[in-house]
Amino acid sequence: MAVYTDVNEEQLRAFLAEYDVGTLLSYKGIAEGVENSNFLLRTTGGTFILTLYEKRVNRDDLPFFIGLMDHLALKGLSCPLPIVRRDGGHLSELAGRPAAMVSFLDGAWLRKPQPQHCREVGQALAAMHVAGSDFAIRRANGLTVADWRPLWEGARARADEVQPGLKDEIDQELASLESDWPSGLPEGVIHADLFPDNVFFIEDRLSGLIDFYFACNDFLAYDIAICLNAWCFEPDGAFNLTKGMALIDGYVCVRPLEPGEAEALPLLARGAALRFFLTRLHDWLTTPEGALVVKKDPLEYMRKLRFHRQIDSASEYGLRIKDLTQ
Amino acid sequence: MAVYTDVNEEQLRAFLAEYDVGTLLSYKGIAEGVENSNFLLRTTGGTFILTLYEKRVNRDDLPFFIGLMDHLALKGLSCPLPIVRRDGGHLSELAGRPAAMVSFLDGAWLRKPQPQHCREVGQALAAMHVAGSDFAIRRANGLTVADWRPLWEGARARADEVQPGLKDEIDQELASLESDWPSGLPEGVIHADLFPDNVFFIEDRLSGLIDFYFACNDFLAYDIAICLNAWCFEPDGAFNLTKGMALIDGYVCVRPLEPGEAEALPLLARGAALRFFLTRLHDWLTTPEGALVVKKDPLEYMRKLRFHRQIDSASEYGLRIKDLTQ
Repeated sequence: MAVYTDVNEEQLRAFLAEYDVGTLLSYKGIAEGVENSNFLLRTTGGTFILTLYEKRVNRDDLPFFIGLMDHLALKGLSCPLPIVRRDGGHLSELAGRPAAMVSFLDGAWLRKPQPQHCREVGQALAAMHVAGSDFAIRRANGLTVADWRPLWEGARARADEVQPGLKDEIDQELASLESDWPSGLPEGVIHADLFPDNVFFIEDRLSGLIDFYFACNDFLAYDIAICLNAWCFEPDGAFNLTKGMALIDGYVCVRPLEPGEAEALPLLARGAALRFFLTRLHDWLTTPEGALVVKKDPLEYMRKLRFHRQIDSASEYGLRIKDLTQ
Repeated sequence: MAVYTDVNEEQLRAFLAEYDVGTLLSYKGIAEGVENSNFLLRTTGGTFILTLYEKRVNRDDLPFFIGLMDHLALKGLSCPLPIVRRDGGHLSELAGRPAAMVSFLDGAWLRKPQPQHCREVGQALAAMHVAGSDFAIRRANGLTVADWRPLWEGARARADEVQPGLKDEIDQELASLESDWPSGLPEGVIHADLFPDNVFFIEDRLSGLIDFYFACNDFLAYDIAICLNAWCFEPDGAFNLTKGMALIDGYVCVRPLEPGEAEALPLLARGAALRFFLTRLHDWLTTPEGALVVKKDPLEYMRKLRFHRQIDSASEYGLRIKDLTQ
């Protein structure tokens, strides 16, 4: 939950005067998102989300994030549409922070997603990949295989505090991923953080994707791997094959996979698990007890990683031969 | 900021099925209020605030709070209207907490209120006092003069950590308030917590009062004293007489003061300052560093208390003779 920066009425009035959205009716800080400050804004012109970008977001990346939402929304993907100022710009300054306003998306994120929701997520992910294919700006993934070792070096000495034996296990895993990481797979814009809290549903229908602040260019299949980890494991740690099949099925009916992508999927899933394990481990070791942000258990991702090491082929995630391009 | 209890879609669906509000469109935790968990809910039937009452709220007081909002809203005061279930009830259970849904009020609270806003607050406070005069349920003020000594005893030993000399100063102040506290002033339902974050404005027009969870029966003039403290001091600690005059002026044009109320005002203002000083001091000493709740500086209220000790008559707050009943 997060409102790091408050905004007063004078600042907001000056900000809104640059937009064509009518008179302010209300604004409330919302307790979602851990990186930025978010307000739900109602004006006589509609309902909006106002985001103040806090220091963890690199200012130079904002044109990519905002341009991407604009691009995807205009292609018909249901995602927040950045609101244009009278002078044509999207990015403003508010309370000393870069700030932007986007359209409000109806829908609520699911605390307990079911297989039919996983199918919709797969479809929406593929639709995003297709819609993003001609987006002009590029952004390298700052949390891909080459970035894991520096992250790991910062936490390695204390890893056994979290679980004895972790240090050796990650040392081996990381070396193996570094040597085996694939190349040449289809690339494009990926969401890179499509967890349940970033996907809205109205009743059982997917109503939109939000939070593109990890989006970047990388292997499209890596985004599927992230989603398998985020959507298809049960709270007790078990992989739910029905959910896996639904997610992949939803994906391939929009964009079939190449055989190389299917083959790489177990390794990509290990990498995706390691990536979230490492950032969670870093936060676990550096966030003070009782801080504003709820700490997420890094071991959840360690258990997922171990599961993926036993996987021989993507069929164990629910992929069928018919899902592949010929 | 506060969402202590999350709600999943199954719980929410079962809860909403008891109401006649249509289909859920979205729900978002909001980062306001420090006692309860609050969600902003949109359904096809409208926009609502859903509150889960956390442990600091006494369950037995809920019929008073909810009945009061219902009473005041039906009398035309702009405040949240509790939504009635199909079976006629207002209070439900959700995620193991007592829960209620109220209408959403447009408006935003002012971070920098000006004198014209203080006038509107005075008017709305008096209108609430008048509208509450025939509310049937009673609730004793749990934070009035008799309750200060137990609060103080819990913090007294460590008070000098906050500022040297505080222990002796509060000992004397408390004894003096206990011996001089008035009796026989006009009583009724007071808000008891009408700080700027509980008053909404649209542009410069007051649009509503919220958060009746400290409301109780007490001297009406004590509520004015609380508002003088909450609205009429500048961030540098100075009392703004223009704001004081505006607040009192707004109040008396709806409900004139009796001479006894005017006479008691400086003492009531000292009491009101001590009450907020003591709860802030308690929170200051017991809330761990870096906790979810932002700690408020108790010394702000000590400085207000010292100001009120120099006041000889309510005219120094802006009260004029013409404001009194004859």
